[in-house]
Amino acid sequence: MAVNADDFFKAAMLDKPRDTMKSKVGSNVTLINVMQIAGLNTLGISIARIDYAPLGENPPHTHPRATEILTVLEGTLYVGFVTSNQANRENKLFSKVLNKGDVFVFPEGLIHFQFNPNPHVPAVAIAALSSQNPGAITIANAVFGSKPAIPDDVLAKAFQVEKGTIDWLQAQFWENNHY
Amino acid sequence: MAVNADDFFKAAMLDKPRDTMKSKVGSNVTLINVMQIAGLNTLGISIARIDYAPLGENPPHTHPRATEILTVLEGTLYVGFVTSNQANRENKLFSKVLNKGDVFVFPEGLIHFQFNPNPHVPAVAIAALSSQNPGAITIANAVFGSKPAIPDDVLAKAFQVEKGTIDWLQAQFWENNHY
Amino acid sequence: MAVNADDFFKAAMLDKPRDTMKSKVGSNVTLINVMQIAGLNTLGISIARIDYAPLGENPPHTHPRATEILTVLEGTLYVGFVTSNQANRENKLFSKVLNKGDVFVFPEGLIHFQFNPNPHVPAVAIAALSSQNPGAITIANAVFGSKPAIPDDVLAKAFQVEKGTIDWLQAQFWENNHY
Amino acid sequence: MAVNADDFFKAAMLDKPRDTMKSKVGSNVTLINVMQIAGLNTLGISIARIDYAPLGENPPHTHPRATEILTVLEGTLYVGFVTSNQANRENKLFSKVLNKGDVFVFPEGLIHFQFNPNPHVPAVAIAALSSQNPGAITIANAVFGSKPAIPDDVLAKAFQVEKGTIDWLQAQFWENNHY
Amino acid sequence: MAVNADDFFKAAMLDKPRDTMKSKVGSNVTLINVMQIAGLNTLGISIARIDYAPLGENPPHTHPRATEILTVLEGTLYVGFVTSNQANRENKLFSKVLNKGDVFVFPEGLIHFQFNPNPHVPAVAIAALSSQNPGAITIANAVFGSKPAIPDDVLAKAFQVEKGTIDWLQAQFWENNHY
Amino acid sequence: MAVNADDFFKAAMLDKPRDTMKSKVGSNVTLINVMQIAGLNTLGISIARIDYAPLGENPPHTHPRATEILTVLEGTLYVGFVTSNQANRENKLFSKVLNKGDVFVFPEGLIHFQFNPNPHVPAVAIAALSSQNPGAITIANAVFGSKPAIPDDVLAKAFQVEKGTIDWLQAQFWENNHY
Repeated sequence: MAVNADDFFKAAMLDKPRDTMKSKVGSNVTLINVMQIAGLNTLGISIARIDYAPLGENPPHTHPRATEILTVLEGTLYVGFVTSNQANRENKLFSKVLNKGDVFVFPEGLIHFQFNPNPHVPAVAIAALSSQNPGAITIANAVFGSKPAIPDDVLAKAFQVEKGTIDWLQAQFWENNHY
Repeated sequence: MAVNADDFFKAAMLDKPRDTMKSKVGSNVTLINVMQIAGLNTLGISIARIDYAPLGENPPHTHPRATEILTVLEGTLYVGFVTSNQANRENKLFSKVLNKGDVFVFPEGLIHFQFNPNPHVPAVAIAALSSQNPGAITIANAVFGSKPAIPDDVLAKAFQVEKGTIDWLQAQFWENNHY
Repeated sequence: MAVNADDFFKAAMLDKPRDTMKSKVGSNVTLINVMQIAGLNTLGISIARIDYAPLGENPPHTHPRATEILTVLEGTLYVGFVTSNQANRENKLFSKVLNKGDVFVFPEGLIHFQFNPNPHVPAVAIAALSSQNPGAITIANAVFGSKPAIPDDVLAKAFQVEKGTIDWLQAQFWENNHY
Repeated sequence: MAVNADDFFKAAMLDKPRDTMKSKVGSNVTLINVMQIAGLNTLGISIARIDYAPLGENPPHTHPRATEILTVLEGTLYVGFVTSNQANRENKLFSKVLNKGDVFVFPEGLIHFQFNPNPHVPAVAIAALSSQNPGAITIANAVFGSKPAIPDDVLAKAFQVEKGTIDWLQAQFWENNHY
Repeated sequence: MAVNADDFFKAAMLDKPRDTMKSKVGSNVTLINVMQIAGLNTLGISIARIDYAPLGENPPHTHPRATEILTVLEGTLYVGFVTSNQANRENKLFSKVLNKGDVFVFPEGLIHFQFNPNPHVPAVAIAALSSQNPGAITIANAVFGSKPAIPDDVLAKAFQVEKGTIDWLQAQFWENNHY
Repeated sequence: MAVNADDFFKAAMLDKPRDTMKSKVGSNVTLINVMQIAGLNTLGISIARIDYAPLGENPPHTHPRATEILTVLEGTLYVGFVTSNQANRENKLFSKVLNKGDVFVFPEGLIHFQFNPNPHVPAVAIAALSSQNPGAITIANAVFGSKPAIPDDVLAKAFQVEKGTIDWLQAQFWENNHY
């Protein structure tokens, strides 16, 4: 089967504002990975556009197989990541307010987020990831929205809350913000 | 500086039952990585003993740079991991009850946990990790116990709860279970 | 020395139109790699903004240690890469016209270029590279502008031209388009 | 084909004392690698239980694709590895007596062994390897028990013995201790 | 399908002087890679013999996926590589005259060449490459001989010459020197 | 400190017949690795010349971090490698007689050897290895010539011989054939 330029190409995915309203968290991630561009196979990179509603966020999540580098195209973002458990048992938050053209790095596997603090203006970012199939784990969804559910006694103890609180959380609708 | 056998050795760490009572989650992870054995540098492996109190757990966490393979030495464990966000937006829980001698794998970067379902008998496991410095991110601690704190409006939206609930969670004491 | 958020951050680099006039080829590449963001070390990714004048180009070049994925922010680009010598001794050109939001991949080490075919409107792209230090080799500059020069008889035979032509080429001013 | 939890699981392999009597060297290695757990594919780790009879040993061997980290569960082990040919032409032995809970590392590709020096008490260890398919080469078996045999003049010169000695060695029964 | 010794073997390829006369550049590269020896798959190495006519050359080229190490078997070679674009915008040429038995390294992805400066005596080299499928991009061929052609306005601007010169170059016969 | 061409160069090492008489096994390996050429650092390749006396051999050995590819320059070689322990507990010997220009591959970490079967004519080979620091473990030397010695009861059991035989072997002079 002959390979050609179309195997390295994806049309018209990253230019258009995407709907951020159908997401409860107010964001929309459009990822171009090896599923969209077969020629990326083994090449170790992918790219995404992220739209943020006013006060919208890309909630705490990890990429199990990739570092992310992000630049702001429009608006303002408050971003951060949390370090691994440290020798002194402290998870440090490294955060920053990013304006247009600023660049920030989220190291592989660490929990990170982006939040649009502006109540009126949307924001847009381009992010690149160091894998052709980086994966994404939205923390709240994976923890409270898995199918089947993680037993509530496991989560109650982990999150120091009553089982009833876990049950209530697990009854919510957990969608991810990748459309 | 001459290298010798002691650079590949760590004494008496993995045989003794460790205290699981000072941990709120009822577990204690003793990890031997490149900090304990300098000779592990670049060699891509480490090992841990995990003690579980009755009803104790190693709460949901990830290793940002390692796959884990675990075998049960004593007792019973209910274990699981949650897959990445899927094309169909479903985070699947893969879980299993493990008895003595059973082996289970937690792929790199995925959220996983072990829980001792027995109310009377402790459990012990040996786990190996595919990095000399695998890192560990206890989800609840990194999300609710980071220093400084992640803003409560970011977490309220992500976890679909009131800000007051987040504030209460952030006021708790979040320690990790690595002593 | 304590690491902090600034080690993962670079301000205000990728938002502003850059001068494309001082470059003979009519383009300007602004690369953020491990030299600008120390925290990228070992993380295997970097990012760039590329500005193209009307009829400007990012001339044929390679990245010796990285695949590139590019998306168009403004304008139109004619892009392509040439495959390695094939069994049938044919170097194939894979090319495409990209509009806003289109994505294209240039596999590691292959010669590639981007050209703005519009005589009136500039173009802008964001590119990500699968290395924290991808390197760039502008073909004409490396071949005809190296210091010291490659002997003209070597190049005359390689390019099937007279030595005088090589001498003339080597006398030109070869600057790269990274400012 | 749907993947499920069983693809990351192997039951009841590492808890039971294994027969060490049918092995001439008095040991038995039970390895769980990608052949037993398909989900280990690409994940770079495997695990083994090793049983040692009194005075039994896991004879000198290498893993061509993995570093090994070992901890003693029961008994005592005298362990060691030999470094590569050095600039000063000296193969150094790094050795140690390990008791319960001690940990030792055998770097990738180096010849190593474990010996139970106790004439009355068996020993047990858990070992992890930094590959889903580490391979094992028992030195004596590969050298004297290969099929077909390595010519005796090659081995006589290498081991500085008479060809008759090699012939006698090659006539022995060389089994490996993986059952 | 059983693997055997023939899967790791290639007969009689690297001993015979190869014809350097049918090549315009006066050289002939005989590469043994994973296409010739299937057992090389995943093993990360390949080997080549290169014959040089008097005044022949292996013209400027890159290997997109491999470093090369070369030793001279017969004759003399003037060799060099050009570094990536530097911070000071200078592409440095690192060159050396090699005699029989000398060794030189061409780092991964960099443009390099070998030239036989002797007008009467051929030269021969053995080169090894750090990939089972290193690829080769002869610069002049990829730039001026691709199929289809790179547009002449792209190349005219890149090489600072008239379009007519590019058209003339593109009309030449560009063969590579791998037979 | 400025890097220059000499950091990628080693003079006059691989052309001259080396003395094979001072070696008991009748061979001499001249390896050019990162110790001789600093520029090889991180580049994953090295090269060697091997001289074989009539009936000389490069005795059974492994490279813990590299695959080897070898071509015969002069004479004839009988070469082979032994596979890892197999599911059916059989270590297979893959062997071949190589003449001038033939190529053979020894996969990473496997025990292999080369033997010159000609009683009158020396042989010469060039070998390349897929690491800048491949290491070499001559089996007999590492097993019987380590310093300090491996206990004779460990080796007696492993090799199925009397301890007195081991003691005799350990009393021999074990030099390696790298000068």
